[in-house]
Amino acid sequence: MTSSPAALAPIPDFYAIVPAGGAGTRLWPLSRQSAPKFLHDLTGAGQTLLQATFARLAPLAASCVLVTGEKHVAACRQQLPQLGDADVLAEPSPRDSMAAIGLAAAVLQQRHGDVIVGSFAADQIINSKRAFEATVREAVAAAREGYVVTIGIAASRPSVAFGYVQSGAPLGVADAPTALHAVGFTEKPDAATARAYVASGDYRWNAGMFITRTSVLLGHLAEQRPALHAGLIEIAAAWDTPARSEVMARVWPGLERIAIDHAIAEPVAAAGGVAVVPGTFAWDDIGDFNSLAGLLPAIDERGNKVVGDPAACSGGVGDVIRIEAGGTVVVPNSGRVISLLGVDDLVVVDTPDALLITTRARAQQLKDVVDAVRESGFEELL
Amino acid sequence: MTSSPAALAPIPDFYAIVPAGGAGTRLWPLSRQSAPKFLHDLTGAGQTLLQATFARLAPLAASCVLVTGEKHVAACRQQLPQLGDADVLAEPSPRDSMAAIGLAAAVLQQRHGDVIVGSFAADQIINSKRAFEATVREAVAAAREGYVVTIGIAASRPSVAFGYVQSGAPLGVADAPTALHAVGFTEKPDAATARAYVASGDYRWNAGMFITRTSVLLGHLAEQRPALHAGLIEIAAAWDTPARSEVMARVWPGLERIAIDHAIAEPVAAAGGVAVVPGTFAWDDIGDFNSLAGLLPAIDERGNKVVGDPAACSGGVGDVIRIEAGGTVVVPNSGRVISLLGVDDLVVVDTPDALLITTRARAQQLKDVVDAVRESGFEELL
Repeated sequence: MTSSPAALAPIPDFYAIVPAGGAGTRLWPLSRQSAPKFLHDLTGAGQTLLQATFARLAPLAASCVLVTGEKHVAACRQQLPQLGDADVLAEPSPRDSMAAIGLAAAVLQQRHGDVIVGSFAADQIINSKRAFEATVREAVAAAREGYVVTIGIAASRPSVAFGYVQSGAPLGVADAPTALHAVGFTEKPDAATARAYVASGDYRWNAGMFITRTSVLLGHLAEQRPALHAGLIEIAAAWDTPARSEVMARVWPGLERIAIDHAIAEPVAAAGGVAVVPGTFAWDDIGDFNSLAGLLPAIDERGNKVVGDPAACSGGVGDVIRIEAGGTVVVPNSGRVISLLGVDDLVVVDTPDALLITTRARAQQLKDVVDAVRESGFEELL
Repeated sequence: MTSSPAALAPIPDFYAIVPAGGAGTRLWPLSRQSAPKFLHDLTGAGQTLLQATFARLAPLAASCVLVTGEKHVAACRQQLPQLGDADVLAEPSPRDSMAAIGLAAAVLQQRHGDVIVGSFAADQIINSKRAFEATVREAVAAAREGYVVTIGIAASRPSVAFGYVQSGAPLGVADAPTALHAVGFTEKPDAATARAYVASGDYRWNAGMFITRTSVLLGHLAEQRPALHAGLIEIAAAWDTPARSEVMARVWPGLERIAIDHAIAEPVAAAGGVAVVPGTFAWDDIGDFNSLAGLLPAIDERGNKVVGDPAACSGGVGDVIRIEAGGTVVVPNSGRVISLLGVDDLVVVDTPDALLITTRARAQQLKDVVDAVRESGFEELL
């Protein structure tokens, strides 16, 4: 195994940024605003999505920085005891991905000079650590040449749940032999468009991973969003000083809310500054309970699946008794015994304070339930 | 209203017997062995089935005697504070309906001499108190003439869930103008037979109500089941004496287990000794959640129904949020918020320690679930 990529040393000037946020309601009531997706072990891997993300990045990066909401810091530190004070950047309020990633990049540049950073969401599923590492090492090599590098996932199906990145000519960077020029990004397509994308071979899923020099990222930000850039630079200068709280309180609330895709990836791609490295590993961001089910093994010959996440609640994981039930997805997180008789393709999410029953086909419509729960005055359940 | 039957005085020599038993698993997990159907308010009437049964009988009878298992006495007394010591006959172990009703009849005869008794199960639904009273008063009149009288319910549908009683010629008793001779009883029929029964006009649902003189009932028992008769007479003689517990401990465990239908109703009917009074009131014994649903009003235009029984659990009654859900039957007895999205005709029973999800069409199959729960080692949930 000493010759395997996993055995290579971390890249000394590469720093991982892990933005951990999101409303967490696409998997409600298992996932909550108070305990979003990334804090859960949804696949029974034995570690939460957040822990798995750090485990993937640790062998690659000089260090990993977490950017998350103040209310999630305690839970994150509990799951990642290795995090030092400097490794956590707490946001007093959500300001979208550009502010989160930009803050981390500015702070890291303040600390280490012009280094390479890679941003990786805390709630994604990646099945091959080795393939992931090889892809990231190529992305870092391309980033050294001044590109904003994204990772394009080989589409295993014409999904309408993901955005796509279109690739063009080879980049021609020696240490990034598979890297390509990025022509542009697309929003989630309709089914016909998605099929055309996948058939063309030029479109890959946009996993929202960005690898780039801090100087390049902040340079683009200064051009595209000067006010946001100025605010982040001022905060970064004060971050490791006694002035941090004063500056954050004054500057952060006024920062523009915008996604890094819109602020930088799209305009810079149009100008030829973005590269894409094809990722061959299986990847998913678990959009709903039906897609989660696709990642789980069946527990019986009828294809029933159970999401066992003891960390999800105080109640513990209950038993699921099935009689002539098939294709169901059950989350037994209240500790109660759940009995299913003669039902098919249901999604049953049982938590100590909320029970959801829907079908796998309707799982994508969960936002309607969350809205109804809010309108019914049960905000505390979200 | 002073002229209405409800305003008539109780019948001085008529005593009501209320057997309260049953495994209570046809409505599991709402109904349990520890808290059977009769202890619940299944229809939102504001009183439990047991309380409703006593409320129906109180205006008719000199007194009402409850026969139930020792483990249910405390709960029954809590629901019926008016019960005196003499009004409760506790069974140390279940010995089926003949022993239960026979014991009550023997004790009442010991106390009051040859009186008229009527047996009415504690877990039935009857919608018209006035029609019920008029029917029972006719039944009492027929019983005075020496008949074992049953009440035959006008079948509103060809149900295969009930047994039927076949009627013959008019009885010719002045104070019981609608009473008929009973030709015989049938077990639950198949669908075709049930349709033929209802079409004929001679068959009515057997509600398991029996009204008769104690001397007549015990006389038939002495003929049909002499050993059981002797045991009950011995127990009754000792009941209101210090010897009760000794005699019960010695005699009760050896009593034959048999239903009153088989022990007396069927053989005596064959001999011409049974009469039937047609009951025109709506009646049901709530065989499963689907039949319970038939008794509940819809809570919305999609026909969803909720069983609200605050007495059923500590958790209280939770809210039910419905989005594109129809025809469901929900029992929100854990206090949890229940959200239904895009599901139809489901039965959802949510209790603090057990959750059941099935379909209205499968509700009759609930015994399979109860068996599976037992085999899975969760006996304490039954």
